[in-house]
Amino acid sequence: MSGISDEVRAVLEAGHLAHLTTLNTDGSAQVTVVWIGVEGDDIVCGHLGEHRKVRNMRRDPRVVVSLVTGGRNPIGLDEYLVVHGRARITDGGAPELLQRLAAVYLGPDVTFPPMDNPPAGVVTRIAVDRVGGVGPWAPLGA
Amino acid sequence: MSGISDEVRAVLEAGHLAHLTTLNTDGSAQVTVVWIGVEGDDIVCGHLGEHRKVRNMRRDPRVVVSLVTGGRNPIGLDEYLVVHGRARITDGGAPELLQRLAAVYLGPDVTFPPMDNPPAGVVTRIAVDRVGGVGPWAPLGA
Repeated sequence: MSGISDEVRAVLEAGHLAHLTTLNTDGSAQVTVVWIGVEGDDIVCGHLGEHRKVRNMRRDPRVVVSLVTGGRNPIGLDEYLVVHGRARITDGGAPELLQRLAAVYLGPDVTFPPMDNPPAGVVTRIAVDRVGGVGPWAPLGA
Repeated sequence: MSGISDEVRAVLEAGHLAHLTTLNTDGSAQVTVVWIGVEGDDIVCGHLGEHRKVRNMRRDPRVVVSLVTGGRNPIGLDEYLVVHGRARITDGGAPELLQRLAAVYLGPDVTFPPMDNPPAGVVTRIAVDRVGGVGPWAPLGA
């Protein structure tokens, strides 16, 4: 798959909290909930620290991003989007990205992160391989 | 960990759509969104068919259940619950469980599954190993 359809892009940018699944060293899954945005054709999220999920993605780039949209499809199933992708980690830029996403997730006037001189952190950039779930982007369901 | 605290049980039974993460044969994660309930100390969900997630759990029982509660903690972070557990699959009972959960997720008068003579399916029963996320159940965050 190359690129993200306009429909999927709109869902990714709508301020739905996203479940980011990475892989631990023992092969089990690690899930945290993150703010996401889109830059170019990548899903992006920012991290002020070298959290376990960041270490996981540096070691194994396979991730899943999943979110519930709040909508229901014509037969009454709750819509959700699942994106399989590959993450790469770039240094710096986390406070600026988090501030941009805070306007979407918390409101236009919120300052985030709520601290002076936040660390530069890292940004995760996820290239989309496959889109599924239940919704117009996956008419046959998961 | 043995058992589920009353606080976590209440969140699991509140009708929040849950992201169920299983492990594919190639080690990547598979995520679908499911209805969940609690029976005894297990998280339960029902499946009318032998979906990939069911095959995955038969092979590797390690799962993660994650959900967003809609609440925010005292410093403004969105609350979410992440449960690491081990799944076992039992035959039959899916329509009855889904009907019980439909009352929670869709409304008290909804008939589900919407078909005559649904297959008996399978029920996934997840023993809870570890609880995390952001909320009173995880005061230090993910």
